[in-house]
Amino acid sequence: MTAHLHGDQGCLNRQWSQSLFEGLIHGGVRDLVLSPGSRSTPLVLGALNCPELRLRPILDERSAAFYALGLAAATQRPVALLCTSGSAPAHWFPAVMEAFESAVPLLLLTADRPPELRAWGANQTVDQQRLFGRFVIEFHDPGPARVGTEARRAIRALGVRAAWVSRGPRPGPVHLNLPFREPLVPKGPCPPEPWEPHPDQPIADRPRPPGGPVENAPQAPGETIRIQAPWFFDNVVLEPDQIAAIRSLLTGPGVICCGPMRIGQSAMQAIWDCARLLGAPVLTDPLCGLRFTPRACNRVARYDSLLRNPATAQRLRPRWVLKIGRTPVSKTLQNWLRGVPSLLVDPSEHWFDPDHDVRIRLGAHPETLLNILTRLTAEDHTNDSAGQGWLADWAQAEQTVDALARDFLATSRWFEGQLITHLLARIPPGEGLFCANSLPIRQLDCWSGQRDTPLACFGHRGASGIDGQLSTFAGLNAGGSETGGGVIGLLGDLSFMHDVGGLTLLDAVKRPCIVLNNGGGRIFDYLPQHGLPDFERLWRTPSRVTLAPLAQAFALPHRVVEDAPGFSQALDECLALGPAGGASGLIEVRIDAERSLKLHRAFWHGMSESTPFHVQ
Amino acid sequence: MTAHLHGDQGCLNRQWSQSLFEGLIHGGVRDLVLSPGSRSTPLVLGALNCPELRLRPILDERSAAFYALGLAAATQRPVALLCTSGSAPAHWFPAVMEAFESAVPLLLLTADRPPELRAWGANQTVDQQRLFGRFVIEFHDPGPARVGTEARRAIRALGVRAAWVSRGPRPGPVHLNLPFREPLVPKGPCPPEPWEPHPDQPIADRPRPPGGPVENAPQAPGETIRIQAPWFFDNVVLEPDQIAAIRSLLTGPGVICCGPMRIGQSAMQAIWDCARLLGAPVLTDPLCGLRFTPRACNRVARYDSLLRNPATAQRLRPRWVLKIGRTPVSKTLQNWLRGVPSLLVDPSEHWFDPDHDVRIRLGAHPETLLNILTRLTAEDHTNDSAGQGWLADWAQAEQTVDALARDFLATSRWFEGQLITHLLARIPPGEGLFCANSLPIRQLDCWSGQRDTPLACFGHRGASGIDGQLSTFAGLNAGGSETGGGVIGLLGDLSFMHDVGGLTLLDAVKRPCIVLNNGGGRIFDYLPQHGLPDFERLWRTPSRVTLAPLAQAFALPHRVVEDAPGFSQALDECLALGPAGGASGLIEVRIDAERSLKLHRAFWHGMSESTPFHVQ
Repeated sequence: MTAHLHGDQGCLNRQWSQSLFEGLIHGGVRDLVLSPGSRSTPLVLGALNCPELRLRPILDERSAAFYALGLAAATQRPVALLCTSGSAPAHWFPAVMEAFESAVPLLLLTADRPPELRAWGANQTVDQQRLFGRFVIEFHDPGPARVGTEARRAIRALGVRAAWVSRGPRPGPVHLNLPFREPLVPKGPCPPEPWEPHPDQPIADRPRPPGGPVENAPQAPGETIRIQAPWFFDNVVLEPDQIAAIRSLLTGPGVICCGPMRIGQSAMQAIWDCARLLGAPVLTDPLCGLRFTPRACNRVARYDSLLRNPATAQRLRPRWVLKIGRTPVSKTLQNWLRGVPSLLVDPSEHWFDPDHDVRIRLGAHPETLLNILTRLTAEDHTNDSAGQGWLADWAQAEQTVDALARDFLATSRWFEGQLITHLLARIPPGEGLFCANSLPIRQLDCWSGQRDTPLACFGHRGASGIDGQLSTFAGLNAGGSETGGGVIGLLGDLSFMHDVGGLTLLDAVKRPCIVLNNGGGRIFDYLPQHGLPDFERLWRTPSRVTLAPLAQAFALPHRVVEDAPGFSQALDECLALGPAGGASGLIEVRIDAERSLKLHRAFWHGMSESTPFHVQ
Repeated sequence: MTAHLHGDQGCLNRQWSQSLFEGLIHGGVRDLVLSPGSRSTPLVLGALNCPELRLRPILDERSAAFYALGLAAATQRPVALLCTSGSAPAHWFPAVMEAFESAVPLLLLTADRPPELRAWGANQTVDQQRLFGRFVIEFHDPGPARVGTEARRAIRALGVRAAWVSRGPRPGPVHLNLPFREPLVPKGPCPPEPWEPHPDQPIADRPRPPGGPVENAPQAPGETIRIQAPWFFDNVVLEPDQIAAIRSLLTGPGVICCGPMRIGQSAMQAIWDCARLLGAPVLTDPLCGLRFTPRACNRVARYDSLLRNPATAQRLRPRWVLKIGRTPVSKTLQNWLRGVPSLLVDPSEHWFDPDHDVRIRLGAHPETLLNILTRLTAEDHTNDSAGQGWLADWAQAEQTVDALARDFLATSRWFEGQLITHLLARIPPGEGLFCANSLPIRQLDCWSGQRDTPLACFGHRGASGIDGQLSTFAGLNAGGSETGGGVIGLLGDLSFMHDVGGLTLLDAVKRPCIVLNNGGGRIFDYLPQHGLPDFERLWRTPSRVTLAPLAQAFALPHRVVEDAPGFSQALDECLALGPAGGASGLIEVRIDAERSLKLHRAFWHGMSESTPFHVQ
């Protein structure tokens, strides 16, 4: 081992890096998205020695990070990012922020100079300690590569820990700053190490989630309910006053409101079961995972429209709301719920309550919630008071508005409304949709309705920016292609242009990116900013770029459509491309923004003026 | 004043914002680079009321920040950036880092939700407190707009302070996080405020730098020298042991080494005067401000080549080095200076000394240094010991290598060497050059030689990334156009692609951006990474994008050249465009990278094998 002290520093660096990756792989990492650089060379060499890892080089670190975000969201596994020192990792920041806010596991591996060169004016060297501030779950700097088995065990354990911590209970990015001394490249073949013939050497294993439900511990008689979550390390302990508070809150007619979240099959089922137990409708945000899926119970998707009717909004106003996930996209919904006492269910540390209505927060998964409610209702049948009329009213309203919306779209000229219904009707089961922020997600919310065939719907609702959307779209497809499901993109022209460099990543994407070209940030047409001085230049900021030559520069197919038949044909052509086919490229959809604004206003006006939608 | 409490929050927000801008303008801000958003609306409205401000909207915040960096570097004034809440400001991070490291004044104005909505799951809301960590000089969050004259005075004073602090003595970015309560837009015309008729109301004025030199205070007899800088708030106090240390260090033959820095005429003159006093050659980095300017004394520009000759390197090795500015680009120079005791002169808080050779650091401007040296040499004529042969040897070596380099270029086939000499011969006086990192700056260092007509040379040597180069180039030209001088860009193809979205900003740029298209990150061809497994894919990462349709998509002219006559013609065409002409667009220079590598190696080999370049 002392050979290293006078041996090849390049070998030591490489072996140290390899041990780190062994740990990360043990923790579930399979993808390394890396940007070129010199200081990061030992880590690349270490990764090349790990056959379990897929290396995905991307030039622009900002694109790389959003790509990793999409990849992690699609695969539900932590994804590692690697870049060189200096300003390179700063480009990750927007995606790191989104990953932190929307709880996506990322491993941020930054190469660095060793401590003796930091703050001494060495080239491409900045202070990388805690670079991402509060937007990571943990930060570590293990120092430069050290010699010996103990050191190797420590760096491997750090890999295990970082990957594991990134996955929860509060998932998110973990930052490892990794300094290396020169030389970075081995001078010759590296000698075999005592470490290497023993890849099975025990390391501190952490418990894995067991495969099925765990029997709840038998309750001791007394006033405290202790419930263990069936599938998670997620324990909720409720004291008597807390039980009383829940019981008291969930009295009379209420609603379940599901905002953007990541959710699995068992959690979905738990929410439907909760809805049945509580006799409550489930208001499903397009990104909550429950709007586009079978096995729905009391599902509502048209709330953004039906609540625009004042009489209906008043009649359907609940006594309580059970909130699951992030704040929903619909501002109409949010305004309507203002002042209604809420119970928030979220397993992470977030407290989603911008209107300050939450009375109780349970740090629990939906499965745990179901356990609690089952126990509560078994004890006192809390929610008989809601009555059958409550659910019937909701169902009637949903059905009426759904029919009205379809009629409206059938008789209107082409705008985003028909595009969204056509799109949802055509995406095959098992495929996904990635919807950009600003107008597209709001229009999806308004026009989608429900869908019984499953559709994975993705969007950035952590920090809710219009950034990194092309790169995320590419990452989602890289992940989706693993399971056979592609992801279609739906972007506005500004979010498209904001990440135009991400076009380099679309050559491997089999699914089309639909670009709603309506001449700039049209969301401001709907906001009070409309009509302010210099509105066009300072808020709407239309782009002067033409998409056809842009697509050509990146060797991507480009289709322009301006009506429903054109759109359906373009979409069908793209979806018909087999696995051996090339990239789908862009479907540019020209939208008459003035017409779209008028149609939206006409529809919403109709909603507000209509007869109330519930049973009279 | 209490009218506001029940009055129009939109008006209060706008007036508050306007007061902030009044302060910033007082502190020297004239440009506001802003990206579209909703929460930032009150600040845009406030800025629109300030006729002194130029508003420059740019969609992508990352581009906006690099543009602001270029604008501030060109105008030598602080530039304000404005964006909305959420992940938007995170895109500024790479440029903020570069601004901090290279001491460029920026005002970072981030709109935010008020405290009652932060960490509550409100849309597009993240923790923006101290978002940029240590990479800002100061951070403030003044809270939401408040009513009353005292509040208005406070926010205006914050504007003055932020702008002033950003300018020095340690220039850099200052971050103001600015929360606003809704509504963001005034409901109607805002009532005139008692404040508004009194724009001259006194605010705490800070001393401005006087126009000329200040008489140094007469020295009291004793052992302590107290020297006041002539133009700066830059005081150096030297105790007797420190004076002795300087005297002892500057004994025998030495060199002055000028690295990348921002420098004015008086500081340049001070350095030439120091060189004369000390009898030392001045090794001038291409970004130090002294290589391309008249009035040179003992200037050396060919050190990267001449030091490759072992005999010359040994003969010219100094006893001491006086370092001014950041670490130079040339690795040859840095290696050669390793172990030579150094005196570092830098007015900022940085300590540029990666080889740990600095014995003394003076926190002073060059003018102050000259004062100190004048005093020291008047007392004991320290540097007679260097001798005339020392300077003659250096001059001889510089001259010989200059001639050899010119001969080499005259007889070689086309590569970057001729391009750089052609370029420097053709850029008119008063114009600038922006040189990207990685290979271009190293090639400029190697091939430029000296130039007696002034040329402002810019580059990112703070964090030394290959990022944001197109956007910075556009910002430099926006600033340069003020003074009549344009700035030509010299970029590699990877740095070009890294910031491809910055192409949207080139429609207003009259000077060409020269893109050295050599098929990827060719710097790695010169490094030990060359030949590693998967080298092409993981390090060199060539782009598959074609520039002609890309330029077309952004409506930019595009010229391709492959030899010296073609390059000269393209450059002349671009420079002949009058002020009324359109954008210059791109000059794509196709480079045969293998040939270039061979030629560089041949030249350096020739250098190392030659007869020593100094007088024998």
